[in-house]
Amino acid sequence: MNLILLFPEDFIAPDRVRLGGRRLAHVLEVQRPTVGDTLSVGLLNGDMGRGEVAHLDPAALELQVLLDRPPPPKLLLTLVLALPRPKVLNRALAAATTLGVARIILLNAWKVEKSYWKSPRMSEENLLHQRILGLEQARDTVLPDLRLARLFKPFVEDELPSLAQGSLALLAHPGAAEPWPRAVEGSVTLAIGPEGGWTDREASSLQQAGFKAVDLGPRILRVETALAALIGRLV
Amino acid sequence: MNLILLFPEDFIAPDRVRLGGRRLAHVLEVQRPTVGDTLSVGLLNGDMGRGEVAHLDPAALELQVLLDRPPPPKLLLTLVLALPRPKVLNRALAAATTLGVARIILLNAWKVEKSYWKSPRMSEENLLHQRILGLEQARDTVLPDLRLARLFKPFVEDELPSLAQGSLALLAHPGAAEPWPRAVEGSVTLAIGPEGGWTDREASSLQQAGFKAVDLGPRILRVETALAALIGRLV
Repeated sequence: MNLILLFPEDFIAPDRVRLGGRRLAHVLEVQRPTVGDTLSVGLLNGDMGRGEVAHLDPAALELQVLLDRPPPPKLLLTLVLALPRPKVLNRALAAATTLGVARIILLNAWKVEKSYWKSPRMSEENLLHQRILGLEQARDTVLPDLRLARLFKPFVEDELPSLAQGSLALLAHPGAAEPWPRAVEGSVTLAIGPEGGWTDREASSLQQAGFKAVDLGPRILRVETALAALIGRLV
Repeated sequence: MNLILLFPEDFIAPDRVRLGGRRLAHVLEVQRPTVGDTLSVGLLNGDMGRGEVAHLDPAALELQVLLDRPPPPKLLLTLVLALPRPKVLNRALAAATTLGVARIILLNAWKVEKSYWKSPRMSEENLLHQRILGLEQARDTVLPDLRLARLFKPFVEDELPSLAQGSLALLAHPGAAEPWPRAVEGSVTLAIGPEGGWTDREASSLQQAGFKAVDLGPRILRVETALAALIGRLV
């Protein structure tokens, strides 16, 4: 937690917040400040700044906050990610958020097991929590937009073309002729398949929706590693 | 496991291996082949190819193997990584291996807790196992070299200058004036600090050892995310 993310309901005065629960526990266990110390804070979808510890006991932390600078800019990047297994989902969401992805779409695919959609990790609460953890890690406040697309065909055929319009749309597909571009100016839409990859039919649907298939090289990366390596290269 | 890594002791004939334990369990649970199916295999530090299932029962898997192609080339990259917390160590080692890093040095630093060096995850067995998992994920056979440098000062002053010589040596350090270079030709030595960063003194020792400090931008990435994003950008 490199930044304590604040929510409107934390404020007990225009410049003062009172925190309990997870954030209090983290501050007590890891940061262990004393009254007068300052901590990095930021308001969800708002500015960032400092919080001076005004009161701290095992039940509550009160901070006097000054929010005086904007969060880092988001990447102009939409990630279309085949829903990963639950174990990987949390890490992938947090990594994408930390890297600054502006919009995440979790998409169904042939090799996505049906059970993944029913995992407790797909609860609205967890999907929000993982993105919050990513913001706290990165020192950012702007929650990436998240959308679930449970049906591949209607989403890719009817919605994706307009979503991806005006951006460079790239599809990670082993064996494609073109290598990954670097340092792209302007916005990017990046589609990353499931473990085992997109089927040929899915890859061709994505290509019809305007995506260019590009090859990742001979190494098979885990989804969260691929994500970071590709984004590092693109931005 | 995208490739079953074979060891010399697995061979019961020049072209036949017999596997038990973890690899057998994985094949039985995940791949579930029948006799005659082929699986991807590779010999540790040797060639890769196919293994045809000759025999499979709950006690052993026998494969008829043909090793006929070389593993993917390694990156010309040495990673000097401040020893991460045990929880992160496994993921960082596997990610670096999967990405194709040729050599990994785990280095002490001021903000590395002493207890990290005593973690059970620092056993030779685990350090090998995590790299093997990385090779199996990537479809590679060449084990990255791993070295432990428990003392910062003598390692950085006496050994690192010659280790890094002839390579572009980069030090991730927030606030440095230069941005990360891209698509570097030739070899790279990349130093990534602990959570909380290098101390100023450590950063200046590394600079004296030939490292150029470069800035990662305003976002604070987890070590395994930073690793992948930086390597994706450099190679």
